[in-house]
Amino acid sequence: MNSFVMEGTFVFTPKKDEFVIREDSFIVVMNNKVVGIFDEVPSEYSSLKIINNKGNIIIPGLIDLHVHASQYKFRGSGMDLELLDWLNTYTFPEESKFKDASYAKKIYSAFVDELKLGPTTRACMFATLHKDATLILMDLLEASGLESYVGKINMDRNSPDYLVETTQQSLNETRNWILEALKRNYKNTKCILTPRFTPSCSDELMSGLKEIQDDYGIPLQSHLSENKKEIEWVKELEPWADNYGEAYNQFGLMGDCPKTIMAHCVSCPEDEVSLLKEKGVYVAHSPESNINISSGIAPIRKYLDKGLNVGLSTDMSGGSSPSMFRAIQFSIQASKLYWRLVDKSYSSLSTSEAFYLATKGGGSFFGKVGSFEEGFEFDAVVIDDSTIPFSSEFSVLNRVEKVIYLADNSNIKEKYVNGRSVL
Amino acid sequence: MNSFVMEGTFVFTPKKDEFVIREDSFIVVMNNKVVGIFDEVPSEYSSLKIINNKGNIIIPGLIDLHVHASQYKFRGSGMDLELLDWLNTYTFPEESKFKDASYAKKIYSAFVDELKLGPTTRACMFATLHKDATLILMDLLEASGLESYVGKINMDRNSPDYLVETTQQSLNETRNWILEALKRNYKNTKCILTPRFTPSCSDELMSGLKEIQDDYGIPLQSHLSENKKEIEWVKELEPWADNYGEAYNQFGLMGDCPKTIMAHCVSCPEDEVSLLKEKGVYVAHSPESNINISSGIAPIRKYLDKGLNVGLSTDMSGGSSPSMFRAIQFSIQASKLYWRLVDKSYSSLSTSEAFYLATKGGGSFFGKVGSFEEGFEFDAVVIDDSTIPFSSEFSVLNRVEKVIYLADNSNIKEKYVNGRSVL
Repeated sequence: MNSFVMEGTFVFTPKKDEFVIREDSFIVVMNNKVVGIFDEVPSEYSSLKIINNKGNIIIPGLIDLHVHASQYKFRGSGMDLELLDWLNTYTFPEESKFKDASYAKKIYSAFVDELKLGPTTRACMFATLHKDATLILMDLLEASGLESYVGKINMDRNSPDYLVETTQQSLNETRNWILEALKRNYKNTKCILTPRFTPSCSDELMSGLKEIQDDYGIPLQSHLSENKKEIEWVKELEPWADNYGEAYNQFGLMGDCPKTIMAHCVSCPEDEVSLLKEKGVYVAHSPESNINISSGIAPIRKYLDKGLNVGLSTDMSGGSSPSMFRAIQFSIQASKLYWRLVDKSYSSLSTSEAFYLATKGGGSFFGKVGSFEEGFEFDAVVIDDSTIPFSSEFSVLNRVEKVIYLADNSNIKEKYVNGRSVL
Repeated sequence: MNSFVMEGTFVFTPKKDEFVIREDSFIVVMNNKVVGIFDEVPSEYSSLKIINNKGNIIIPGLIDLHVHASQYKFRGSGMDLELLDWLNTYTFPEESKFKDASYAKKIYSAFVDELKLGPTTRACMFATLHKDATLILMDLLEASGLESYVGKINMDRNSPDYLVETTQQSLNETRNWILEALKRNYKNTKCILTPRFTPSCSDELMSGLKEIQDDYGIPLQSHLSENKKEIEWVKELEPWADNYGEAYNQFGLMGDCPKTIMAHCVSCPEDEVSLLKEKGVYVAHSPESNINISSGIAPIRKYLDKGLNVGLSTDMSGGSSPSMFRAIQFSIQASKLYWRLVDKSYSSLSTSEAFYLATKGGGSFFGKVGSFEEGFEFDAVVIDDSTIPFSSEFSVLNRVEKVIYLADNSNIKEKYVNGRSVL
């Protein structure tokens, strides 16, 4: 349990519509949690250590709600295909290599190293279908100090013979994986059920995963309505489901307790949007990936207007960058094109709204996370923007905007996850 | 005049449809120009110095056909408005500061320093309406070794009183600027006429600029059909012009001798596209800027199909990044969304096509530039991609793709402009 005071300029979004800026102030953290932000250190906290980040901008840690750790190696390449061809050509062959533990360790180590150096403090990620490799990733994440949910993928149909399980294998390995993870007694690393997507998972597998969920009470992540060809395929595979979302919901896998994350939601019909709302499902908005794989742009303004839970994600390696700074940038840019090219009734995202999605929006999946309000777990990124030319001549808000568009990992001076220093 | 041999892996696009890759080869450069690429050094060139860049990828220098040097300071901020409001709120107040020579020197120095460290070897840029500041920029560019066209902006109407000239002032200052630039005898830095855009330039000013063009034979750059409100405004201002392009053409300012660059061309009607083709005008495609200022996406596939001259540009600070790597990335991404959201008959740009636009496409504005074919001026960027994780395990083409998406200036090991080493 960590308690301290930090001096600096704090920027956060308790509500999505505006930034709260506390310039040259002091945040008090007691037992990993925010007590408050003060102009001066209150006398009752005067004995606490003061961490001096005066002049730096301090933002809540960024939350990546959807990222494929196993796709790290080929990120930034193979961007010429749509989803289903992209999976078969680039993704599945790469993922199959993770049956080799030494390969898994090599790639996952590099990925976790990069994640640690970046602005992400928490992430929900896909591994591969391989239990042992998934545990290697979890060991590395636990050692990194980051907080994460990690999923061993399930896939028992419509998959290449070099990357597929039988239904029973898939269920057994999932139970074994959960038991082994529990045995390892991770503090910051949790299991999340991960049926790849409906095309890869038989009805029997889905039913079995629901039983596992009931037994262990763990959340679930998957993909939903990313690409038109995928949606058509799901209609063929699950003709009795009114929509793609129902293809999960019919097995009880769209819920708010335990929570559910559905990545993408680019092309959801209205009844599916209503289902997402009703079930409290988290939409993991992956704007760069949706562009790179030619899926389109998710109508995030609509989802916000309807009160859906929305977080932001890189979806590396559909997205080329694992940086959540870039994800914020792309979310704003994609929303501008949605307004211009698709529907003028949906205004583009403001900077504060995009920032909110990347912090408190996705953070709420983890609890009281993603803000500097009282009682929130202290996740923070301390930014030294002095290498961004002329930044010192701008307002704090303009500096934050410049960080979103121009900063890279070299601008990150310190990082804290739930009160722990991790950099 | 420089002559040498360079060893390395050469990647370029003589035609837009495919990369030519010459792995572990030797390029012979005689008197700044490419002689050819060989598997071994031919005996007649064996006395030349060999520059060893074995293992590195060497690409033609990237050509930024449209960038606002004076907007460098606020790049990555103020992204919340459309064009006309953006100009009035952010751009014009900033540009007005360049009447102060010391301010101009401070900002332009930082901009040229960054340009020099990046992959751009040549650029066509806007300064401000201030003659002296424009000459400061030209001095700095000349010293950098880069090749450039630089424009003192003209604006005599619909401009704020702190950033406007009378028609006569504008014409006189333009002539004085050209004469002074000629006197300074720059080797790599040229004047380009730069009426800001039709709304800022009276008919009398446009006519006067044509006279100057006839007197000195210098090319011209401006903006065309970027934003819908701007296009409507031009219709009001120039009701006798059939389209925005004709508002320039009626004064003889859309030509191929001297050449013309028109930035953006997001929303050109068919007769305007025909005019661009007929006159051999260069379209400076600025995908990130067109997204950031909510203008939309230019139909580049259509322009390529019709055989227009198209180059790529950052349009910083409508674009946040002065990196042409990012401009290539955005051109591919924007074309995918155009295909998905606007018109399925226009396929997205391939990696080689986007690369071509950034090299030979824009390079032809400067002459035989942007390729490693025989007789081309040797502009080259030597890339050390060893810091991009696992890049050594990929094919050359995948490495180039990773460079486009993931490289930054730290990956640039050497840079050559017309045979000169500039880094």
